[in-house]
Amino acid sequence: MSSTFGELFKITTFGESHGGGVGVVIDGMPPGFAVDLAAIQLELDRRRPGQSAITTQRQEADRVEILSGVFEGVSLGSPIAMLVRNTDQRSKDYDTLKDVFRPGHADYAYFEKYSLRDHRGGGRSSGRETLGRVAAGAIAKGALATVGVHIVGGTVRVADVEATQRDWPQAEMNPVRCPDADAARMMQSVIEKARDERDSVGGVVEVVARGVPAGWGDPTMDKLDARLGAAMLSIPATKGVEIGGGFGMSRLRGSETNDVFDGERYETNFAGGISGGISNGNEIVVRVAVRPATSIGKTQKMARKDGGTEMVAIEGRHDPCICPRVVPVAEAMLALTLMDAWLHQRALRGRER
Amino acid sequence: MSSTFGELFKITTFGESHGGGVGVVIDGMPPGFAVDLAAIQLELDRRRPGQSAITTQRQEADRVEILSGVFEGVSLGSPIAMLVRNTDQRSKDYDTLKDVFRPGHADYAYFEKYSLRDHRGGGRSSGRETLGRVAAGAIAKGALATVGVHIVGGTVRVADVEATQRDWPQAEMNPVRCPDADAARMMQSVIEKARDERDSVGGVVEVVARGVPAGWGDPTMDKLDARLGAAMLSIPATKGVEIGGGFGMSRLRGSETNDVFDGERYETNFAGGISGGISNGNEIVVRVAVRPATSIGKTQKMARKDGGTEMVAIEGRHDPCICPRVVPVAEAMLALTLMDAWLHQRALRGRER
Amino acid sequence: MSSTFGELFKITTFGESHGGGVGVVIDGMPPGFAVDLAAIQLELDRRRPGQSAITTQRQEADRVEILSGVFEGVSLGSPIAMLVRNTDQRSKDYDTLKDVFRPGHADYAYFEKYSLRDHRGGGRSSGRETLGRVAAGAIAKGALATVGVHIVGGTVRVADVEATQRDWPQAEMNPVRCPDADAARMMQSVIEKARDERDSVGGVVEVVARGVPAGWGDPTMDKLDARLGAAMLSIPATKGVEIGGGFGMSRLRGSETNDVFDGERYETNFAGGISGGISNGNEIVVRVAVRPATSIGKTQKMARKDGGTEMVAIEGRHDPCICPRVVPVAEAMLALTLMDAWLHQRALRGRER
Amino acid sequence: MSSTFGELFKITTFGESHGGGVGVVIDGMPPGFAVDLAAIQLELDRRRPGQSAITTQRQEADRVEILSGVFEGVSLGSPIAMLVRNTDQRSKDYDTLKDVFRPGHADYAYFEKYSLRDHRGGGRSSGRETLGRVAAGAIAKGALATVGVHIVGGTVRVADVEATQRDWPQAEMNPVRCPDADAARMMQSVIEKARDERDSVGGVVEVVARGVPAGWGDPTMDKLDARLGAAMLSIPATKGVEIGGGFGMSRLRGSETNDVFDGERYETNFAGGISGGISNGNEIVVRVAVRPATSIGKTQKMARKDGGTEMVAIEGRHDPCICPRVVPVAEAMLALTLMDAWLHQRALRGRER
Repeated sequence: MSSTFGELFKITTFGESHGGGVGVVIDGMPPGFAVDLAAIQLELDRRRPGQSAITTQRQEADRVEILSGVFEGVSLGSPIAMLVRNTDQRSKDYDTLKDVFRPGHADYAYFEKYSLRDHRGGGRSSGRETLGRVAAGAIAKGALATVGVHIVGGTVRVADVEATQRDWPQAEMNPVRCPDADAARMMQSVIEKARDERDSVGGVVEVVARGVPAGWGDPTMDKLDARLGAAMLSIPATKGVEIGGGFGMSRLRGSETNDVFDGERYETNFAGGISGGISNGNEIVVRVAVRPATSIGKTQKMARKDGGTEMVAIEGRHDPCICPRVVPVAEAMLALTLMDAWLHQRALRGRER
Repeated sequence: MSSTFGELFKITTFGESHGGGVGVVIDGMPPGFAVDLAAIQLELDRRRPGQSAITTQRQEADRVEILSGVFEGVSLGSPIAMLVRNTDQRSKDYDTLKDVFRPGHADYAYFEKYSLRDHRGGGRSSGRETLGRVAAGAIAKGALATVGVHIVGGTVRVADVEATQRDWPQAEMNPVRCPDADAARMMQSVIEKARDERDSVGGVVEVVARGVPAGWGDPTMDKLDARLGAAMLSIPATKGVEIGGGFGMSRLRGSETNDVFDGERYETNFAGGISGGISNGNEIVVRVAVRPATSIGKTQKMARKDGGTEMVAIEGRHDPCICPRVVPVAEAMLALTLMDAWLHQRALRGRER
Repeated sequence: MSSTFGELFKITTFGESHGGGVGVVIDGMPPGFAVDLAAIQLELDRRRPGQSAITTQRQEADRVEILSGVFEGVSLGSPIAMLVRNTDQRSKDYDTLKDVFRPGHADYAYFEKYSLRDHRGGGRSSGRETLGRVAAGAIAKGALATVGVHIVGGTVRVADVEATQRDWPQAEMNPVRCPDADAARMMQSVIEKARDERDSVGGVVEVVARGVPAGWGDPTMDKLDARLGAAMLSIPATKGVEIGGGFGMSRLRGSETNDVFDGERYETNFAGGISGGISNGNEIVVRVAVRPATSIGKTQKMARKDGGTEMVAIEGRHDPCICPRVVPVAEAMLALTLMDAWLHQRALRGRER
Repeated sequence: MSSTFGELFKITTFGESHGGGVGVVIDGMPPGFAVDLAAIQLELDRRRPGQSAITTQRQEADRVEILSGVFEGVSLGSPIAMLVRNTDQRSKDYDTLKDVFRPGHADYAYFEKYSLRDHRGGGRSSGRETLGRVAAGAIAKGALATVGVHIVGGTVRVADVEATQRDWPQAEMNPVRCPDADAARMMQSVIEKARDERDSVGGVVEVVARGVPAGWGDPTMDKLDARLGAAMLSIPATKGVEIGGGFGMSRLRGSETNDVFDGERYETNFAGGISGGISNGNEIVVRVAVRPATSIGKTQKMARKDGGTEMVAIEGRHDPCICPRVVPVAEAMLALTLMDAWLHQRALRGRER
């Protein structure tokens, strides 16, 4: 199913970048949890364009309205619908793109799939679709916090600049959202240089969940790794995901990567907190490969719908590096995945009130 | 749900390494397709232990029986159940492991999840669970071939040895399943050295689908990337997945990684054949990070269930590198994912007979 | 999952009777179908309170807004979200009910399930929840009509008054929605008498689908009968469903009820158009038992939340017979069920463009 | 999806009447529950043909084998696969039916759906498919019993003979499975008369769950009524289902059918134990309309596949009334539905160990 994520904590996002608005319906929220509108808005503001000099300069207020499922600040157990109206829609910017397939974009694939295409800003492939995920993720974060699960995240690489620290509070103090202040400054330079050359750069985002008890997740098809793989690779512009030691571990030996557990703590965390698909009590660590934004101002060769190619520069206000804005989305997807795993474990082992 | 993969072409695997047997039920196989028992057995033989000097020396015949859903070699449209009986079960080998949590293994996480543990060989975390996937994948491969979709795969890295060629027929001619004959020889040496030192090595497996038309997959939550992320990270011992340019692309610029399409062909394939979650007509390319096998003969520190640690060497017949045996499983998961996407696209756009 | 119906044409309704509004998200609408806002509004008006002297006198405009998924009157293939704002909310009417469990209502069951209760009008058990179903059903009806499938319905019994005719256009010409003008008049008297006595009456609603080709539906768990059973019994106040000959057939013999098919037409329709769970080309006929509305003005004994009972009369504006308003909901559920079955059959047998 | 029932306690049945065997895989069984092979076999024996003079005289031993998921008599939490081999297959009996569409049967609908047909005994529409349901239901019954939920059932009408008693233990003491000894004798005469005239009769089966706590089930789409509607109408040869007062209630007034609850007990049970889709603590009562078996020995007019009609008598060993054999199947479906609802309620409200 196209727009639904999760089984027990199931979200369905809706909305195009141009139209009445974007939003989400959460089906499966347990009753009795505090739902804090301000906390939801805060997460949306982290995702919002126009936050800093290194994000797109589009201005969207992105005010969220809760339509249902919450009464006097508490979840009712019924579906929670949330809506963000579209405002700053410059369809005109997209008129020149009506007849071409942009390189790197999904234009051609969409056209082949649907035989039609809403050229006004990407339709469902627009980054605005992630608003609903972030709003739902904020609610999941709130619920998870009641059982001691907390999620942090940041940009840990931009082009070739690597963060060597994981000072998570720092991540919210620089525009790159990097948990390493020194690296953040270098990353910012790299991004500004790309922006000035009407180009974009890629990077890597890392998200971490602390306090997840051992026992969440399933052993075969719905390994927590697998659910996280789906969660992260459903974020626009991601092309890779790794858990714990990830690809680096493929260069090592078993005697190096077998995390030794002494009954209380692990000496290492190559498994990224997940063994055999099930949380093992260690921190859950996920890294996501973010490709350079496909929307760039440079003149590029494009196929015309009626045949032939032409050279076109895509006007508009682009993100030179989307990593800072992917961070809250990746955190949301981690929260949504864990929320679902938590409810599954309650179904499997829970005792009723 | 623990053991089910896919929505329209839905498989459920069952079985422990010790017990009556392992198998799979396919629910959603369309009617009228040839189902070739020999082709299924061939795929199982590629996954089978004891194939060569660099796989475990366990001997399991792994003969598959089709219980239902096929009549006179053709699918009926009803569930196809397949069963492989267990034979070579040396439970004795596992007796010393009853009271410890092995490093790298899922023992502790399982115990926390289920409050009990079948110590006789790993239960559902045993590699034998993948038999059902491979059998189902063989049927998916056969069906996909009728519309021109073909799948190949191989080991493209072992420790630090990289394959530089993609000569796919070669992959079936060496025990490493490497599509580069020179690299294969070096990989084999690396694996044998690890085996002789009672250790294991990791690597990377690549699988490729050719002939997938543009338009399969979905734009948001069920991006083809996301489904493949789940598919690959549900394979035991995998800790990373990337599509096309993957993590490498995160080091580049948009002007380098935007695949230019001239209306007929792509100049590059950084997207790995998937744009905005939807197949774009290019080859689909997926790479999977395989960790070093956690079962090694070396003496390791292990936590005891009753507290404290001890040094234990795990007896048994281990795989020094599981990449060669992961190849058919990863191919199967790619086939299952594409089969499901194909049926979804038929639902969305198909015309009835 | 609580609020989701369908697999391939999946709808999720949201909203309480008191709050921001009620609505629906359709996930899985194929692209390229005309979506007619006026036709959707027309169906909502059929369900609306205040239509006639024999429905509740609450006044709700129930204007629907399409938030997404439709561009220039055509479905995009993306989720279609629709919203109806709440307006006429007299929470005050419900204040006396805060501390009692009303007989026939779900108050007690809700309280046991959720440990809290939104007493302002029933929350999700409010009939307003069905607005989303009717809006989604209108879109399904439009799509089904393009392949010649048409749905009609009406009230065929009220208390002991049976309709003996099936003059479907007549059903929209009397307030009871009965396809038999003579019976309609008698039904109206029966309903008015109950209303005047602050009571309610039950009845039976019948819905029929014409033009469904043979081959839709599945043979075992997802028999079309089973899906229709779920669809109809998910409508508030329904307590029975039968297909074709239904309960009456249980009194007959096989030689009487085996529908003879001569290769072109059926001599009878005891199967109600469904054989072995699969449409057989005959009209699909479904009847739904509607209980007397539980909200009545009569004084009734009620349990108090803090123990003991008291006699309470429930103020408010009640429906003396909800059959006329169940008709469009039952038609919608039939349309949604068939839409899903159609897409499944396309997945199973469809050929791509 | 064709052959899968349930979400958290998910079963998939497989197998044709002719072929390797029939069976079931349960995905979602929680760990630590006793699984009693003898109890499963006992339920299968209740469903078995050849039990008495009024069931078909086919002889099938129907011995079940547990292939996985159970270790030392306790569920592991992994999929439980069970297999019953086919034995008494008289394909020859079906040869004359190869070229005709039998009246009342699904032959024509199947042919239109699949473009092929396994004429050897009905394929998936064979009653043998229900073996897997009964085996899975036996396990669900065992688990439910640990929380005080018990299920009984019986035949409460055959043709026009009604049971007026609900002496459930009696139901297992007569071949009709009727909970009223006097009615049972009359029912038996009616059935024998139909059998002697090479005909069949219909009836009604009732199943009851005692001890279900208030709070199971969901308020909108997955009302317990709706899930039971799907469960019962997925049983072969059923064409109606009603909960509690059912169709009879549609003749009454609200003041008669609103069950008064005094805080401890209900004065009546018109709701059949389910209010607003959620269990209310009262007994859950479900009745199922069973049509006369479509397989009869009488000569009937049948359409030929190549056009025209002919008169054919279907040889074979038929059930003159399938109610006695539907009873264990309906009980199993009730158990499966409640098991799923229980796990859902644990997910919603459960506390972990």
